[in-house]
Amino acid sequence: MSKPTPRPPKVLMLLTSDFVTARYEALRARAPDLEIVTELSADTDADVTALFAFKLPQGIAPRLPNLQLAASVGAGADGILSAPDLPAHVRVTRAVEPGLGLSMAQFVSLQILRQFRMLPKMEQQHAAGVWKRLPVPDARQITVGIMGLGSIGAIVADVVAALGFKVIGWTRSDSRDSRVPVFVGEQAMDAFLAQSDFLVCLLPGTPQTAGLLNRTQLAKLPKGSFVINVARGGILVEDDLLALVNEGHLSGAALDVFATEPLPADSPLWRHEKILVTPHIAAQPSVGPVVEQFIENLQRLAKGDPLLNEVDRLTGY
Amino acid sequence: MSKPTPRPPKVLMLLTSDFVTARYEALRARAPDLEIVTELSADTDADVTALFAFKLPQGIAPRLPNLQLAASVGAGADGILSAPDLPAHVRVTRAVEPGLGLSMAQFVSLQILRQFRMLPKMEQQHAAGVWKRLPVPDARQITVGIMGLGSIGAIVADVVAALGFKVIGWTRSDSRDSRVPVFVGEQAMDAFLAQSDFLVCLLPGTPQTAGLLNRTQLAKLPKGSFVINVARGGILVEDDLLALVNEGHLSGAALDVFATEPLPADSPLWRHEKILVTPHIAAQPSVGPVVEQFIENLQRLAKGDPLLNEVDRLTGY
Repeated sequence: MSKPTPRPPKVLMLLTSDFVTARYEALRARAPDLEIVTELSADTDADVTALFAFKLPQGIAPRLPNLQLAASVGAGADGILSAPDLPAHVRVTRAVEPGLGLSMAQFVSLQILRQFRMLPKMEQQHAAGVWKRLPVPDARQITVGIMGLGSIGAIVADVVAALGFKVIGWTRSDSRDSRVPVFVGEQAMDAFLAQSDFLVCLLPGTPQTAGLLNRTQLAKLPKGSFVINVARGGILVEDDLLALVNEGHLSGAALDVFATEPLPADSPLWRHEKILVTPHIAAQPSVGPVVEQFIENLQRLAKGDPLLNEVDRLTGY
Repeated sequence: MSKPTPRPPKVLMLLTSDFVTARYEALRARAPDLEIVTELSADTDADVTALFAFKLPQGIAPRLPNLQLAASVGAGADGILSAPDLPAHVRVTRAVEPGLGLSMAQFVSLQILRQFRMLPKMEQQHAAGVWKRLPVPDARQITVGIMGLGSIGAIVADVVAALGFKVIGWTRSDSRDSRVPVFVGEQAMDAFLAQSDFLVCLLPGTPQTAGLLNRTQLAKLPKGSFVINVARGGILVEDDLLALVNEGHLSGAALDVFATEPLPADSPLWRHEKILVTPHIAAQPSVGPVVEQFIENLQRLAKGDPLLNEVDRLTGY
């Protein structure tokens, strides 16, 4: 074991996907003097003070005795927090930047409007050369329920409200101000669900939210509701959703995240006419701001200053 | 010729489409005592003081010697103003209500987001069972140019800005405040067009705007621009747009209005892969508010009060 030394931090990046590799290359270009390793090695493990990754497999953290910071390259830190062997003293951060909230608001708005304004029908008529007027429905009669009003959910709520829809929110704990009516806690979930013509899931992936949107909860939505999951796949029970769509209780769903990603080729969600599967592309933190935030947090760590976007290890967000 | 009498107004409605017929039925239900005729007749023509219609064919107005008000059931009054024989003293109104602006903002946002976020590609991948990430572009780098910042355009501008896009506007005359940068007049149009990655046409249909968006003007848009026309078909030269799309200068178009409606079956716009044809359904004034406004204007006319949403016969809006 080496002793802690005053020399610059050494960073371990786990290149588990092209997404992480792009951030690795950006970090190297932005901070050429920063020491970055991409694999475990008996020569360097003891020097690693910071991890910059999307997923932290079990077995990594115990090999890094001087690890102080585990920073997620993504908006959620669940891929890091889910490592059962991450020592309690290691601090965890996630990527927060305004562009992410806007991208999410765009994606959610697109999926709401696609369903609300019957875009597939418009496209069919165009392809068939059919001129037939479609109804112009009134958004002011439609309620969009947003689960999760954090830094992303709050932006989505504002944008969807600007589009003319009624917006309500649900949060586990009333931790922040909101410009939309908020239902707080499990005891308010039934009332929230019963009003939501569109249900937008923006909750963090935590042990508390795993499987939260199951048949029992989804059945409380009004008949004809449409479900949009852009948070984490594990929150929604895919088979339960599918059954309620096929039974006609739900009108459909737009799913960007899945219990297993990539979504397996034999999933019945693929090609389903009332469901749109997208490959986890609703939004992502821009490379530049995320790299800057990580460098800033390395400096703050060295100086003992509060970290940007630190995650509460207990709540997971 | 009858002399003007103090009895209640008699209304002529020209049932030229299902759209107008629906407003006719709503007006009859709302004001059962109002005398409404639906065709010309030597017995009643001289009693007609108000017209409630979408299109006023030539030859009608001269048969109505006591006509005082020609009210459009739609947001534009061009279908009435285009009658060459409408006497100059007849006052013209159009339908204005906030829901119309919101519906338009929803439709425009849907078309922008569909193109910007590559929705057709998402749908193809879903239909083919392909998991392949698509780029998450940054709306803050994209400029949406909105032509026409009246009661509708101003709402659209606000909503598109809320979605994160840069928004600029163009108006013929600087007649109102705006929260977005505005280019005013013909001399500013080149600069406006040169910046517009999306061009949204919300201009009124007037002799001045007829054919305004021709090849010369559309060619000034940046390469790859996308055109959305939700105003009046006559403003855009369809053949010029089609040529610029086929030549690759424009990436595509969403067209809701056409020089001839319904769009003729042999139009090359139908089925074009880079164009979406929709049957004039972007937005429409809600029946209720339009009928209320018409009844209110009949009362105002009788009392000599200013009319709601009166159109300037010179500018056409």
